[in-house]
Amino acid sequence: MTQKKKLQQISANIRRWILNCTNRAGSGHPTSSMSAVELMVALFFDGHFRYDIDHPRHYNNDRLIFSKGHASPLFYALWCAADAVDEDDLMTYRRFDSVFEGHPTSRFRYTEAATGSLGQGLSIGVGMAMSGKYVDEIPFRTYVLIGDSELAEGSQWEAMQIASEYQLDNLVGILDVNRLGQRGPTMQGHNLNVYQKRIEAFGWNTVIVPEGHNLSEISEAYQQAKRCKDRPTMIIAHTIKGKGVSFLEDKNGWHGKALDDEQLKQALKEIEEVPTDLRGELKPPQEVNFPVLERSQPEELKYEIGEKIATRTAYGNAVARLGDKFSNMVILDGEVSNSTRAEFFQEQFPERYFEMYIAEQNMVGAALGMALREKMPFVSTFAAFFSRAFDQIRMSPYSGANVKFVGSHAGVEIGQDGPSQMGLEDIAMFRSVLGSTVLYPSDAVSTERCVEQMANRCGIAYLRTTRGKLPVLYGRDERFPIGGSKVLRRSNDDQVTLIAAGVTLHEALSAADELGRSGVSVRVIDLYSVKPLDVETLKAAARETSLLVTIEDHFAAGGIGETVCGALSDTSITIRSLCVSMRPRSGTTEQLLDQQGISAGKIVEAVKESITSMTHSWQ
Amino acid sequence: MTQKKKLQQISANIRRWILNCTNRAGSGHPTSSMSAVELMVALFFDGHFRYDIDHPRHYNNDRLIFSKGHASPLFYALWCAADAVDEDDLMTYRRFDSVFEGHPTSRFRYTEAATGSLGQGLSIGVGMAMSGKYVDEIPFRTYVLIGDSELAEGSQWEAMQIASEYQLDNLVGILDVNRLGQRGPTMQGHNLNVYQKRIEAFGWNTVIVPEGHNLSEISEAYQQAKRCKDRPTMIIAHTIKGKGVSFLEDKNGWHGKALDDEQLKQALKEIEEVPTDLRGELKPPQEVNFPVLERSQPEELKYEIGEKIATRTAYGNAVARLGDKFSNMVILDGEVSNSTRAEFFQEQFPERYFEMYIAEQNMVGAALGMALREKMPFVSTFAAFFSRAFDQIRMSPYSGANVKFVGSHAGVEIGQDGPSQMGLEDIAMFRSVLGSTVLYPSDAVSTERCVEQMANRCGIAYLRTTRGKLPVLYGRDERFPIGGSKVLRRSNDDQVTLIAAGVTLHEALSAADELGRSGVSVRVIDLYSVKPLDVETLKAAARETSLLVTIEDHFAAGGIGETVCGALSDTSITIRSLCVSMRPRSGTTEQLLDQQGISAGKIVEAVKESITSMTHSWQ
Repeated sequence: MTQKKKLQQISANIRRWILNCTNRAGSGHPTSSMSAVELMVALFFDGHFRYDIDHPRHYNNDRLIFSKGHASPLFYALWCAADAVDEDDLMTYRRFDSVFEGHPTSRFRYTEAATGSLGQGLSIGVGMAMSGKYVDEIPFRTYVLIGDSELAEGSQWEAMQIASEYQLDNLVGILDVNRLGQRGPTMQGHNLNVYQKRIEAFGWNTVIVPEGHNLSEISEAYQQAKRCKDRPTMIIAHTIKGKGVSFLEDKNGWHGKALDDEQLKQALKEIEEVPTDLRGELKPPQEVNFPVLERSQPEELKYEIGEKIATRTAYGNAVARLGDKFSNMVILDGEVSNSTRAEFFQEQFPERYFEMYIAEQNMVGAALGMALREKMPFVSTFAAFFSRAFDQIRMSPYSGANVKFVGSHAGVEIGQDGPSQMGLEDIAMFRSVLGSTVLYPSDAVSTERCVEQMANRCGIAYLRTTRGKLPVLYGRDERFPIGGSKVLRRSNDDQVTLIAAGVTLHEALSAADELGRSGVSVRVIDLYSVKPLDVETLKAAARETSLLVTIEDHFAAGGIGETVCGALSDTSITIRSLCVSMRPRSGTTEQLLDQQGISAGKIVEAVKESITSMTHSWQ
Repeated sequence: MTQKKKLQQISANIRRWILNCTNRAGSGHPTSSMSAVELMVALFFDGHFRYDIDHPRHYNNDRLIFSKGHASPLFYALWCAADAVDEDDLMTYRRFDSVFEGHPTSRFRYTEAATGSLGQGLSIGVGMAMSGKYVDEIPFRTYVLIGDSELAEGSQWEAMQIASEYQLDNLVGILDVNRLGQRGPTMQGHNLNVYQKRIEAFGWNTVIVPEGHNLSEISEAYQQAKRCKDRPTMIIAHTIKGKGVSFLEDKNGWHGKALDDEQLKQALKEIEEVPTDLRGELKPPQEVNFPVLERSQPEELKYEIGEKIATRTAYGNAVARLGDKFSNMVILDGEVSNSTRAEFFQEQFPERYFEMYIAEQNMVGAALGMALREKMPFVSTFAAFFSRAFDQIRMSPYSGANVKFVGSHAGVEIGQDGPSQMGLEDIAMFRSVLGSTVLYPSDAVSTERCVEQMANRCGIAYLRTTRGKLPVLYGRDERFPIGGSKVLRRSNDDQVTLIAAGVTLHEALSAADELGRSGVSVRVIDLYSVKPLDVETLKAAARETSLLVTIEDHFAAGGIGETVCGALSDTSITIRSLCVSMRPRSGTTEQLLDQQGISAGKIVEAVKESITSMTHSWQ
């Protein structure tokens, strides 16, 4: 059998599998899968894609990401054709007990990155390509299958601009222009030249494939892509949605619809019957010497108690210090490294610092891509601007990501810049991420220790830092385990417990001292680990004191107050939560904390008021 | 005085004001403001911009949005030069008691839209232009000042593609290419041709202004923009950051820095001294006949109790029904109208439906723009995909927006598509938005009534809808006030209260019935108003029953459980919260609800377990 015939037959098998598995599941996106069959078959089985199916973690495997994640039937069918999975298993598609989920996740062995929320795949590919080209300097190539509809997502254009800026000639996008979106035609339809013009304007090489189901044309495009130096390549293919079955081809109204049994029967008649045990072979990856990680001991901390340092500055010091210990640590920042202090790392390790400009969605996606290539990215911007990338952040856990997020300029504390720059929802946002850790240290020592903890523990973590200078509270030998807390004021006669973090921890200490002078004994807990919480210490306070007051420079929803209330919901303790509740504005830190009722003076007032009303109600 | 001289002198005054007000505040972005002085002076005072400063709400005023919101000193100075504000007031810049905030908000009378989080202004302008061209058909023009750094934001490219798709020739972007970002040069520097190529590829007309401080060149560009039909225009100007003061011009390191007193003195020496009472005049707007709003009575609801209808379908029915009553209602959807059911409105009122394609950031920004032009936008997509636009959503309140968000496909309930499509953080996200309303109705009748409530109340609101069909619970005469709840099962002997919404409300009812059969009397509360909460009913339940159990198809962080715990934190009631806590996956609705412990059977188990352990602890 000629190579061409073999590829055609593999394509036929794949179409059968797509139609069958979605019919079995009663749902799925067969027509979206069918438009890209030849694009993927040529890639995999005509000698372009290099991969060892027995070693998915091989450093130099090529990478394939389905940015159009709903074409998962094709994705899984491809690996079946490569003999990496069984046909029977493929037929468990979308079942509860199956790893073949509706959109690919890390539960499936060959998923590079979880997708399904459109427009995210190219950024992840950018990160992988950057990692390969600049960090590890190994030649694997990254391929991203992209739908035409999802090119409307701005995140894709962020990725494109960064890919050309970084000259990622090891990155190939494959644009499946099948003309039809979910509810009708895309804006450009089959006008490939519009896509070409835009993508070339963004600095990419492009290869048009006028017949997107012609295997040799497609193969030639992959060859051209390989030859192109210094620029990434977008293969732009004119395809037909539902290709292979006449009553589906280029027809609106079939998006996201599986065929029923009768329709399936009709459809299968139109597809060549081929030996179902036919499989293709993937070319193995080139062997490389993977760089050996050098490690060294980090320097010790040098802070003195009482010294005033911003926690964002301590963060910068920490990563500059730890960059030697963790040689796979990389930093990505969004045009604000002189504010977040990521610049300190850039000064020490310029080859591992990546400027990602004002494009947070792509920055997060690229960080994920790097993490999936075994780097440890710390990603920084203002806490408020991570909201720009919430979709990408929310999707990260489904890839099994090891990404550390660092948001500076938390709260109204930032002062005069005003609300657009204030992080007031970031704790809630990062708490909602599956399996995340959320840390909010209040001084330089605890910040540096938290950064160490984050680096030592795999998974998604978020560190919240403050703009202004705050006094160092802790000695260098203090430890700050994730899930712990610090009790800074404590006696056996405590009536009230103040629970705070970051800037409000300092306000709480002042308040406690003032209340102490008026005869009210106050416990103070530094809740630097917001997630997971130190429930034990909180419950002890609930048992031993009569009132808990949480104070945070953050909105109420999903913040420290709500997480504490939730954790203590099986106790009878009274909890009062102070937080940002009025519309914030420009002003000085002191004026703004006071306006929001979270300054030392306002904490004292609130405690006295609560004690008074509690006393009355006991009487 | 010639017109040219007058404009030059106004520019000099404006530079003085920029330097002075930032010096007084001790912070701000003078150099970013100075690069765009002539661009704005020509617009305002050379007869292009038409505006009545005594009537900022005039329907046909032209609109000016500072997408580069940090150039607020310029923005305010411009209005001062137009005699709309006093110079003395301008000098209160960034003070706590001042409306001249660090980035423009709706507290300042002439702010069209709050900005400061970069890359959002063009979308808002798109919405305003769409409103003017297609809804009201009045000829005002919308101008958006854009920074070059912020063009890295994908949201700007989303806006550009939609603007050309919708042929918005009443929209003009002014790109201030001053080469320098916050921490260094932008990717393109002063290569205007790269911007031109990209922007033209996106379908815009472009006008290059090689001398971005040459008032007549700039004026000519505005004329060209006005003459261009069927396409929006981007004026691309080569400018100098810090223009006007030699030691600032084109110098890195000055971003976001105000001048100190000595530097100010030096700087002012370089700026022409002109009569400080010199003011410019804005050309008044053309008078138009504003369309009269026709209103009619909506049809009555037709649902029968027990009938199975998805709440997303009821949403579609509601807006199709209410479109006559609210003739300023518009709908924007992100390529999923056949899923969200926004298509029902499209069928009835095609001229008020706007397809926004797979570009949620721009969709939200455009909705804001329309709302600011007195339309009432309902914006829909999957609940999960609103996370793509969290930054735009978070910023909306600072413009005083009247926008209604509708997120479908909430929770694991959606089944086989899997986690990428599941809204599991949306309640938290929308609760965190300042002043928002969050509604989560459980049946068709309450959904339609909630939509009516949202339409009747000004402000930001979010409605969460479910994919699958659920039985109608309520009669047509039931009312669903915002801040209310419904008690569906109640007796004087209730031991336990179940609090739920949406799909879990139905599970709770089944659980209550089963528990009732085992002798446990259960109250059931439909918490359709998640924010604001019906605290009174919750407190009554806390007094009258021994255990509250919240059940939600949503993650724990910031969800229904946490909001209820927070609201009852001054009571001693025990609250147990069931929610999505394990990593979700593909499967049937029943399997997934059960896996997460939020199905009827699991609720029964949890209640029995809690009762047992509470009984033991009482012993």
